Amino acid sequence: MPWWSPTQWAQMLAGDDCPMCADGHRPTNEHGELIAELPGSYARLCFNQTHHGYAVLIAKRHAPELHDLSADELARFWADVAAVGRTISALFDPVKLDYLVMGHLCPHVHCHLYPQYQHDDPHGSIDPQAGDVRLDETEWTSVIEAVRAHLAGHHP
Amino acid sequence: MPWWSPTQWAQMLAGDDCPMCADGHRPTNEHGELIAELPGSYARLCFNQTHHGYAVLIAKRHAPELHDLSADELARFWADVAAVGRTISALFDPVKLDYLVMGHLCPHVHCHLYPQYQHDDPHGSIDPQAGDVRLDETEWTSVIEAVRAHLAGHHP
Repeated sequence: MPWWSPTQWAQMLAGDDCPMCADGHRPTNEHGELIAELPGSYARLCFNQTHHGYAVLIAKRHAPELHDLSADELARFWADVAAVGRTISALFDPVKLDYLVMGHLCPHVHCHLYPQYQHDDPHGSIDPQAGDVRLDETEWTSVIEAVRAHLAGHHP
Repeated sequence: MPWWSPTQWAQMLAGDDCPMCADGHRPTNEHGELIAELPGSYARLCFNQTHHGYAVLIAKRHAPELHDLSADELARFWADVAAVGRTISALFDPVKLDYLVMGHLCPHVHCHLYPQYQHDDPHGSIDPQAGDVRLDETEWTSVIEAVRAHLAGHHP
């Protein structure tokens, strides 16, 4: 499948009807639940927990590329990513964290914090949408509260 | 294929025989050529130019995860990534840039700056090693000199 038309893409770059501007800050949306509002981003835990601890951080302001953020916005965004990464590492003990900023479907800066585990293929291609493991309500509440508590104690 | 053994992985995390520590700063290595030494990273143009403008930035100090860098190192690293991204955007006009920090094969913080074009599949999985387009020597020299010249004029 090719990319969107130049006209459609220009509208998406400009933030017209940007879904992350619309619901990246909401307590819940179709993709996940807000962990916390951080200095440079909204941190969200993804409902798809195929990779345990999978979270997304969404820049507070619409910007398609990292160089469209100011130096301060950029530094805050990545300090947030690192802080959430520290929390996920501490709680879930992945072998490695992946940090993926793409935005093919939504060109608003966001980073997939995508943990890799011993059973994952280190040579495999990356697709954060792969799989569809959902936690039951009790597990979900326990996980997101643990993430919030750890993060609150460790964000610089 | 599963991940490395815990013992091997612990050595890789610690930086024992880390290939990026060994040659990330060198003028050329098996993967590409040094564009420039930047405040927080070594920026390298990859020999595999299947995605035109594909570059990698390598943190100057061995650290497996973003949260293993200091706040200053982290900010410098991402300022560098954004600056090289601005240059690649200006020179190659990709539809979108991907910024991929993984390190499954080498857990030393590095970011693949992986441009996406109109003919790429925005729904496809990501594998920066895919394809093997090489430029001839004249093209290569022209490209890397253009990247260096633009970057020198635009890094903050």
